[in-house]
Amino acid sequence: MKNIKINQAEGISERDKERTSVTVLGLGPMGQSIARTFLKNGHPTTVWNRTAEKAKNLVKQGAVLAGSITDAVQASPLIVICVLDYDAVHAILKPVEDDLNGRTLVNLTADSPKRARETAIWASEHGIDYLDGAIMIPSLGNPSALILYSGTEEAFKTYHTTLASLGGTADYLGSDPGRAAAYDVSLLDLFWTSMIGYIHALAVAKTENIAAKDIVGYAQRMVNIFPGVPEIMSLIADEVDTGHYPGDESNIISAKVGIDHIIHTAQSNGIDVSVLSSTRAIAQKAIDDGQGTDGFTRLVEVLLHSKNH
Amino acid sequence: MKNIKINQAEGISERDKERTSVTVLGLGPMGQSIARTFLKNGHPTTVWNRTAEKAKNLVKQGAVLAGSITDAVQASPLIVICVLDYDAVHAILKPVEDDLNGRTLVNLTADSPKRARETAIWASEHGIDYLDGAIMIPSLGNPSALILYSGTEEAFKTYHTTLASLGGTADYLGSDPGRAAAYDVSLLDLFWTSMIGYIHALAVAKTENIAAKDIVGYAQRMVNIFPGVPEIMSLIADEVDTGHYPGDESNIISAKVGIDHIIHTAQSNGIDVSVLSSTRAIAQKAIDDGQGTDGFTRLVEVLLHSKNH
Ligand SMILES: NC(=O)c1ccc[n+]([C@@H]2O[C@H](COP(=O)([O-])OP(=O)(O)OC[C@H]3O[C@@H](n4cnc5c(N)ncnc54)[C@H](OP(=O)(O)O)[C@@H]3O)[C@@H](O)[C@H]2O)c1
Ligand SMILES: NC(=O)c1ccc[n+]([C@@H]2O[C@H](COP(=O)([O-])OP(=O)(O)OC[C@H]3O[C@@H](n4cnc5c(N)ncnc54)[C@H](OP(=O)(O)O)[C@@H]3O)[C@@H](O)[C@H]2O)c1
Repeated sequence: MKNIKINQAEGISERDKERTSVTVLGLGPMGQSIARTFLKNGHPTTVWNRTAEKAKNLVKQGAVLAGSITDAVQASPLIVICVLDYDAVHAILKPVEDDLNGRTLVNLTADSPKRARETAIWASEHGIDYLDGAIMIPSLGNPSALILYSGTEEAFKTYHTTLASLGGTADYLGSDPGRAAAYDVSLLDLFWTSMIGYIHALAVAKTENIAAKDIVGYAQRMVNIFPGVPEIMSLIADEVDTGHYPGDESNIISAKVGIDHIIHTAQSNGIDVSVLSSTRAIAQKAIDDGQGTDGFTRLVEVLLHSKNH
Repeated sequence: MKNIKINQAEGISERDKERTSVTVLGLGPMGQSIARTFLKNGHPTTVWNRTAEKAKNLVKQGAVLAGSITDAVQASPLIVICVLDYDAVHAILKPVEDDLNGRTLVNLTADSPKRARETAIWASEHGIDYLDGAIMIPSLGNPSALILYSGTEEAFKTYHTTLASLGGTADYLGSDPGRAAAYDVSLLDLFWTSMIGYIHALAVAKTENIAAKDIVGYAQRMVNIFPGVPEIMSLIADEVDTGHYPGDESNIISAKVGIDHIIHTAQSNGIDVSVLSSTRAIAQKAIDDGQGTDGFTRLVEVLLHSKNH
């Protein structure tokens, strides 16, 4: 994996010394945060949003609100777009694809690796230098922020200081423009599934007259055995990479039975059990295949082998 | 909530001073750990398991292997059972229900609150003092261990020192025998859903040729924004208890679109998307109800309201 870290960059490009002008397209929570951070770092910043009024606070902070999308694109050599999805990206950029020629487009909108690759092809057809980015930790301007990039290496090198001013870590994952999105969807898979898991857990608790505040203390003490902590994450990653899934401390059969209890409780208390029923079915497949005494992490193979059916 | 903590107990009962004899029924990973910990703490320990050979190591460590389930039950005033599920509990205990009369049964097997309550009724009909327990953090013998109990308060008081020797925290949650199981199923809901989320994430990554070891470092850096850390857990619990779900930093519509990208990627790479499709459907319900600009935690209400359909 090509992995240039911005903090390892040698020197600052000429362009960056003069504080590159940047255009930010899209002013949802992220676009606003991006524009605000560029402004704080002294970059002349032009903004545009379908709904112009969202630019109000940014203009007070020194941003220039472009009168049209054409003006917005023409204002800067570096265009950063961050909107709902790639349909929105294409709806916004199609009318100005010729104006983008010779400029660098950094797309921080999230979508699938496939669409990132398609967008890179479109960009190359129009002479646009293209970088596809994924905002993993959105605390822009702070050391904790994390943005992943992939696509044109030259574009990343030219603008690394500007992009680094968004804070924290900016990692370049290689020239495959889908790479950042591939990391993004994988990591967000964990994020959203954990979210629905916690929310469902609190819902089940409520049906048993347990307030969230009564159970949260226990959940907090249990984090050390959950896949939400670095140590457990590493353990599981090792099992998955080596294909060795020991079940001596707890196995799939026991897990499936545990999941059954949750489903029975939720069901008899009348609430949705769809997420856990799917999880149960995956465990059941492993049991049916004679893998029941292996560890739960073996389910990665069940998921991967569903591929061939 | 009645919540006697074992470490707050005043003094040690007469029985405990003499190191209570304990019988442990079931020698899966947990039963073995329970018996081993009692032995280490000097409790005369009798063990029994359907498959007797699992007692071998424990006998070397000083346990007495009972020749029959009747002998096992008659050996001690305190019987701890920890097997696969309550079907197994009843299969084991039905033949000796009269021998259990006058003894205390601590059931550390996991099952639903409903079955815990039913088992308590059965116990009371046979003159058995009943405590239902849930092993939340299974590091028995260590300060990190966490076991929750509910049921007969007298039994908890009588044996608190013995039970505390299993290590860490032993919390009494009240006389409703289903209470420990209610906490258990809720907390395990979070656990198993997070597990399948992480495993699915690693599977998606693999289909994009990303090894688990390549992505785990990013996952580890992101834990601070995941519901796997205490701070985020508290934030979400507050939103759920107050019914206030702000969506200004990220809303359900944006989340649903993000989930779509994961589903599209997994689907076009040919792997199972059942868990996320269920999550997506729950988010879609909120959007259809006009709640799309609220935060994701509002989905707790969608789950609870599915109750009435
Ligand atoms: N929020 C976060 O914490 C976070 C974190 C990491 C990554 N991200 C990603 O960052 C991106 C932006 O997220 P966000 O939360 O800032 O905002 P969002 O709610 O996902 O999207 C809102 C933005 O998209 C624009 N938009 C939507 N449909 C459009 C269309 N058809 N034509 C033109 N513009 C359209 C909106 O314009 P209007 O104002 O005119 O509606 C607004 O600028 C998403 O891909 C998201 O997944 C967000
Ligand atoms: N393992 C963990 O990390 C953990 C953590 C917290 C809670 N728990 C809970 O603790 C309990 C025990 O878990 P475990 O992992 O130790 O073991 P398990 O794999 O869930 O169950 C194995 C035990 O159950 C017995 N058993 C199963 N079916 C039986 C039947 N029909 N009749 C008689 N005995 C039967 C087995 O006997 P044989 O040896 O004869 O098969 C063995 O003693 C479960 O409720 C589990 O959810 C486990």
